[in-house]
Amino acid sequence: MKALRVERKRVAVREVDKPIVGDEALIRVLLSGICNTDLEIAKGYAGFQGTIGHEFVGVVEQAPEKSLVGQRVVGEINAGCGKCELCRAGDPRHCNDRTVLGIVGRDGAHAEFLKLPALNLFPIPDKIPDEHAVFVEPLAAACAVTERVSLTADDRVAVIGDGKLGLLCAQALALTGAHVLSIGKHPEKQRIVERRGVEVTSPKKATKRVREFDVVIEASGSPSGFDLALSLLRPRGTLVLKSTFQGNSEINAARIVVDELSIIGSRCGRFSPAIDLLRKGAVDVDSLISEEYPLDSGVHAMQRAASKGVLKVLLRP
Amino acid sequence: MKALRVERKRVAVREVDKPIVGDEALIRVLLSGICNTDLEIAKGYAGFQGTIGHEFVGVVEQAPEKSLVGQRVVGEINAGCGKCELCRAGDPRHCNDRTVLGIVGRDGAHAEFLKLPALNLFPIPDKIPDEHAVFVEPLAAACAVTERVSLTADDRVAVIGDGKLGLLCAQALALTGAHVLSIGKHPEKQRIVERRGVEVTSPKKATKRVREFDVVIEASGSPSGFDLALSLLRPRGTLVLKSTFQGNSEINAARIVVDELSIIGSRCGRFSPAIDLLRKGAVDVDSLISEEYPLDSGVHAMQRAASKGVLKVLLRP
Repeated sequence: MKALRVERKRVAVREVDKPIVGDEALIRVLLSGICNTDLEIAKGYAGFQGTIGHEFVGVVEQAPEKSLVGQRVVGEINAGCGKCELCRAGDPRHCNDRTVLGIVGRDGAHAEFLKLPALNLFPIPDKIPDEHAVFVEPLAAACAVTERVSLTADDRVAVIGDGKLGLLCAQALALTGAHVLSIGKHPEKQRIVERRGVEVTSPKKATKRVREFDVVIEASGSPSGFDLALSLLRPRGTLVLKSTFQGNSEINAARIVVDELSIIGSRCGRFSPAIDLLRKGAVDVDSLISEEYPLDSGVHAMQRAASKGVLKVLLRP
Repeated sequence: MKALRVERKRVAVREVDKPIVGDEALIRVLLSGICNTDLEIAKGYAGFQGTIGHEFVGVVEQAPEKSLVGQRVVGEINAGCGKCELCRAGDPRHCNDRTVLGIVGRDGAHAEFLKLPALNLFPIPDKIPDEHAVFVEPLAAACAVTERVSLTADDRVAVIGDGKLGLLCAQALALTGAHVLSIGKHPEKQRIVERRGVEVTSPKKATKRVREFDVVIEASGSPSGFDLALSLLRPRGTLVLKSTFQGNSEINAARIVVDELSIIGSRCGRFSPAIDLLRKGAVDVDSLISEEYPLDSGVHAMQRAASKGVLKVLLRP
């Protein structure tokens, strides 16, 4: 089968063996989405070698549970050991021995087939088209912010970054009733969230809104975004980091101590709430799709996904 | 009167006017303590110029409330505007227009006299000697950790740094019932907290205890302490920053996101719980006193406070 692979920092579509599933499920990929993490992995992030991609919708072709076969599914990307305390509590997202689809020790979704434990799969209601279902994983990541910070309608929230993740975060968090400001450089992208009741502004204008926000979400993926983020926070405010990128960032620790700020990392979210939001049409993902390519053109698709102004790029095997 | 002042990064004991109190209280200082923040201010931290010092015990000489006159007191160092939302709620610690004793816009405690609003003063029970009362402010700062992170007896806590603040934190947090590990380079200092049921180890040995801790307190004041602190935390663990120092620190943001860590700044604490702990003798502060000097020898005392192996240095006007 064909797969988009990163090997020694080179990205290429290669012919590889179909996964041997063992006691896991085999899924035929219908559509996969390129995430910024894929672009970072191509640069060396996480040191991953293999098939990349972790956002997908597909059809189960083989599974230990026969009832799953033929179902259209999305998949939680963290596959736990099944034995540790966290896994036994039903949340493998921080299992120490986990593999992660297309990121850690497990081939990913930009391929004709992938395998995952049956436990990781979530059937998708017929009402949700493939082009929406492929957003379940990143939308779940956006919703995960509220697992880490409780938001109320009184909260003033700023989201830095108007890329795919930033726009999903702005929409998802606006649903809590909180006042949300999207800070980004692309008014044409920001229009997507403006239509959903989100206020928008530019990074330059945002610098004037010092200490105005209870919560700031850093979703720009820029290591230099810290300073703006910290300046926007009121004393005892919370900065949520959503982007994974390579390298270190500089922070002014005294500012964190004096203003008693919190900095909180947030990664993967639960799939059920995201599926629910898509079923209700509560989040506009259609407008986030920029381009679609056949898997064969995966290398070009990766270049396009890294281009200024381009949002989600989809791959169809 | 005499005062220990920082002017253009130079520390000197100078003759200055006695404070004009207006509607505040005038306090004759009995004893003051040198904090690492004083040493950082001398290097340029916070850009403060004037009389330094914010840890003290003294006697009220003048006050709008006559009942205060003659009382032995300690003083909350943040003096708020009295009008903003925070001040009206009784907590001026984050008032945007606050002055801070010996740190921001208000002459400090290494002097014969100081002034503070009467609201900031806390009478000290006779049972607590001056040499203990002077620790109320730093002990309150140590206790403040539990205002920002709730600890239970199940928690595994590591305190990095065996300086004054680290040893106060280790003792105060051990009182919660949590298991506390003190990480430091000075076994002779660590013995103080070992006697109070705290486990002790060296930074080198601590590097082996990867992902073992729910909460890590950074009290070493070393910008390079971040890496060790983050490595000790379990996924979703919390790093509490206690030290203020000049300059930026490097952090690996991806580590914070992937393990969903929290980094929380913690500064000043409430005075009442600290006075209570000293009254009960629940914390050993006697062993933290290294040396005492007359105020006249303030410059030498500052040098001693900055010397390896020296803990609290007191000044007596």
